[in-house]
Amino acid sequence: MTNGKLQIIPLGGLGEFGMNCMALRWQDDIVVIDAGLMFPESELLGVDIVVPDITYLIENKEHVRGILLTHGHEDHIGGLPWILSELNVPVYGTEFTLAYVEGKLEEHKMLDETELIEMMPGGRFTLGPFTIEPIRVTHSLVDCVALAIETPVGVVVHTGDFKIDLSPPDGKAFDLHKFAEYGKRGVLLLLQDSTNVDRQGYTPSEWSVKPRLDEIFSRTKKKLFFSCFSSSIYRMRIAMDLAFHHGRKVAVIGRSMVESSEIAQDLGYLDIPNGLLIHPGQIADHAPENVMVLISGTQGEPMSALSRAAVDNHKHARIAPGDTVLLSSRVIPGNEKSIYRVIDHLYRRDAHVIFDDGHAGLIHVSGHASQEEQRLMINLLRPKFFIPVHGDYRHLKKHAEIAQSMGVVDLAMVIEDGDVVELTRDDIRKTGTVTAGRVCIDSGSTADVVEDLVIRDRRHLSEDGFVIPILTINKLTGMVERQPEVISRGFVGGDPELIETARQVVARTLEESSAEEKADYGVIKEKIRIDLKRYIQKNTSRRPLIMPVILEI
Amino acid sequence: MTNGKLQIIPLGGLGEFGMNCMALRWQDDIVVIDAGLMFPESELLGVDIVVPDITYLIENKEHVRGILLTHGHEDHIGGLPWILSELNVPVYGTEFTLAYVEGKLEEHKMLDETELIEMMPGGRFTLGPFTIEPIRVTHSLVDCVALAIETPVGVVVHTGDFKIDLSPPDGKAFDLHKFAEYGKRGVLLLLQDSTNVDRQGYTPSEWSVKPRLDEIFSRTKKKLFFSCFSSSIYRMRIAMDLAFHHGRKVAVIGRSMVESSEIAQDLGYLDIPNGLLIHPGQIADHAPENVMVLISGTQGEPMSALSRAAVDNHKHARIAPGDTVLLSSRVIPGNEKSIYRVIDHLYRRDAHVIFDDGHAGLIHVSGHASQEEQRLMINLLRPKFFIPVHGDYRHLKKHAEIAQSMGVVDLAMVIEDGDVVELTRDDIRKTGTVTAGRVCIDSGSTADVVEDLVIRDRRHLSEDGFVIPILTINKLTGMVERQPEVISRGFVGGDPELIETARQVVARTLEESSAEEKADYGVIKEKIRIDLKRYIQKNTSRRPLIMPVILEI
Repeated sequence: MTNGKLQIIPLGGLGEFGMNCMALRWQDDIVVIDAGLMFPESELLGVDIVVPDITYLIENKEHVRGILLTHGHEDHIGGLPWILSELNVPVYGTEFTLAYVEGKLEEHKMLDETELIEMMPGGRFTLGPFTIEPIRVTHSLVDCVALAIETPVGVVVHTGDFKIDLSPPDGKAFDLHKFAEYGKRGVLLLLQDSTNVDRQGYTPSEWSVKPRLDEIFSRTKKKLFFSCFSSSIYRMRIAMDLAFHHGRKVAVIGRSMVESSEIAQDLGYLDIPNGLLIHPGQIADHAPENVMVLISGTQGEPMSALSRAAVDNHKHARIAPGDTVLLSSRVIPGNEKSIYRVIDHLYRRDAHVIFDDGHAGLIHVSGHASQEEQRLMINLLRPKFFIPVHGDYRHLKKHAEIAQSMGVVDLAMVIEDGDVVELTRDDIRKTGTVTAGRVCIDSGSTADVVEDLVIRDRRHLSEDGFVIPILTINKLTGMVERQPEVISRGFVGGDPELIETARQVVARTLEESSAEEKADYGVIKEKIRIDLKRYIQKNTSRRPLIMPVILEI
Repeated sequence: MTNGKLQIIPLGGLGEFGMNCMALRWQDDIVVIDAGLMFPESELLGVDIVVPDITYLIENKEHVRGILLTHGHEDHIGGLPWILSELNVPVYGTEFTLAYVEGKLEEHKMLDETELIEMMPGGRFTLGPFTIEPIRVTHSLVDCVALAIETPVGVVVHTGDFKIDLSPPDGKAFDLHKFAEYGKRGVLLLLQDSTNVDRQGYTPSEWSVKPRLDEIFSRTKKKLFFSCFSSSIYRMRIAMDLAFHHGRKVAVIGRSMVESSEIAQDLGYLDIPNGLLIHPGQIADHAPENVMVLISGTQGEPMSALSRAAVDNHKHARIAPGDTVLLSSRVIPGNEKSIYRVIDHLYRRDAHVIFDDGHAGLIHVSGHASQEEQRLMINLLRPKFFIPVHGDYRHLKKHAEIAQSMGVVDLAMVIEDGDVVELTRDDIRKTGTVTAGRVCIDSGSTADVVEDLVIRDRRHLSEDGFVIPILTINKLTGMVERQPEVISRGFVGGDPELIETARQVVARTLEESSAEEKADYGVIKEKIRIDLKRYIQKNTSRRPLIMPVILEI
């Protein structure tokens, strides 16, 4: 019960980037906005993904009416399998968002038991005391919405991720009029994306990369490897368009890239001319100057197609001297080392590499609103209260200061995950906290390896234990200096025979890896982890935490 | 023997940033330029520092005539204790560089047995067939030199780290004339710093930060915490100067900052007015607006004074609401997460934080040459051959392309650690390789903890084994969810009693840590590592590798 007050309870994404999740509660009714994951910090070894602690939702299971998704990025939908395994509630999303969700749930064998309900911009619907209207916004992904939620005390608007793009490649522009209309009728609370609060001015349109990309296509003499985020449908569309106009056939490589392009094509976001696509096996049949390879792996992910191509370990993606590799993406902080490692490998193959080094020209644009767009939204909506979402503490704080300084908002308030804020028509205050935090999950998922994915709580660590293979690698020779060690605890009673075989599995993986792979610790650790996990699951049906450790000598 | 050819043999810093080290050989005489360390990548757990593999130097021990140091940064001198423990040869450096070296060797109890020889810009000296002249260059540190080395086949110039600063705060400007003179007489090979090859134009002078810093001093109402690299003597000088003019007393906090400021004062690089300095214990005796705290920890190093102050765990550095914290430094790639963690903590204390976020103004300048300065140096020297040093492969490659494109150099060549290049008067070619690579060292050193530092090769891992404490921390409560696990291998035969006590040591460290420290995994892991290492060394005289692992639930 909330005694005539609307509660706002962030469970993820306020105080960190990623794992966005927020509950809105009015008395006995709760709706949840987004259910994201985040990728772990390097301190959390052997963990694949991190999701919000949803103890609060589990404890209030019978009150949760549904999960509303603003768009299909992993930091907004990636935690769904985890949440749905605890709460079986309907999931609302736009057509494209639900297509991503379907793929994800199918992978986890959860699709049949989940009720997915499509929502459309402008299509109002009711959940308990809440009337929800999705409003079209623009972002780096397609079919994204903000949510206007009418509650008994007033309208709450959650922007989701957005920028104000007036000329997106699919023509579906940001809906300025709808926001203006809500602003006129009165908004109690605005929850706004803080991601780019450090950037002044406006974020350019998705279209704006086309001239520079066109130039790169014009100058490229041999094969062009075009890499972007696999969810960057707009970018993919521009790349295919340019390939068509420059007489290049297109091969799509990398599981996520293939899946995403197929969804986009099915739903009409990609209109690919007949005969443009070729199978990756046909690349060699075409002259290099007539091929573009759309390839995944902009962040140097160790098992991605691009990382493997960079060490000449991909069957179809072979990079020859003089080929061009274009990373139409940004360097996500924390990924520098793996990205630069891949770039160095590409240079050693004498490829031209074009990436975000400060001089590459406009090869990528952000999907998030810069300061002027944030101000524009605040001005359109003129909310009484303002709470920044999506960011580290310093971003939230800066965003709140900007909102407050505009003289439009009565009160801008910084809150973090687990805080409970209560609103009436005239008042907003922090009144308590609920359980919140991070849960680490070892899903076994990697970009190009399909496994039987199982979600598992680290609370069960004591059941499955852990296994730590320790390798001693000579940096120069790339050779393993002695037999790998494998230590374990809490895992099949440390069965010595199994551990001995595990050592052999690790030794074999090492033997079968090239010197270049062994020189790239990210790659070799991931290969060992996957091989060992497969072996252990097959032979014991257990899923211990597997954490390879490398000692370099 | 080198049969009338000059050999250039890089052992570190060509193919990575850090651990700079290069050998020059003529027949039976070798000189070594620099002996640096680098900080490990996150993959190398439990390792403090990484130094070059010097197998080649050890195998040719009797031929090594000396080590020449270009300046006193860790990536140029930090590997000295390690190298000198294998080769007892004279070390040449400028006055200031040797002052840093002395401190380092004293810490390792190696000062008495090492011959340190001061060299001065313009002071030529001879080592075997080499005549060496140090030439004054400018950089972020003081008293830096390039080296012009006359060899039987011609002059080799190694720039060390440099930028072309014509108005450094100490008035000791870059020696344009000397380089011009060498250029006129003819240079066979230029080995040039590649660090900033991605930056166009010129790097600003060290002086150029003063106006913006002055503005910050003018606007700061309460205490000002000024943080910079402890070797940034120029920055320290400007900060103290501004403190004096704005009526603030100065307290210096952090071991490295204290040591560095004392050396700079002794050698006349810091001229501190009487009465300006106060003891950190006196901070509270002064009004906040009359205090500046010069504090170490710009990179969010877990045990640094600033990191501890940010979680209110420093005796003297207490940050109050409204205080200003200025990070006059850059965000070194790879350190983002620890730096931003500290900044978020500072914001939670309601401090104003000014850091390199793209809008802070000119609060820091680089110490390395940008492209135009690199070009200027090439034009001054007009070398026949060019080899870029200091950088990842992509930097070396770009730098070589720039040099080649100028039409001045006969051949620009990219080589990496372990390559052997041979030069005659007319020719340069790669002729082979020697052993090279990285050696990981667990020195036990941290910024603020003085221990008995022992250098140890990971080759001896099998002697001392390893110990892995595993903690399960609840993110929300900061509580450890069960007794910490401690696993070990190859260490005192896994003596169960010792391991049990080790568990208790870890448990005690956890009990004695604040919730904020426990929420900061970098901090808590480092605390556990240090406490456990101390305990184990005291009770067993062994030095196993200690790698705390955190499982978050």
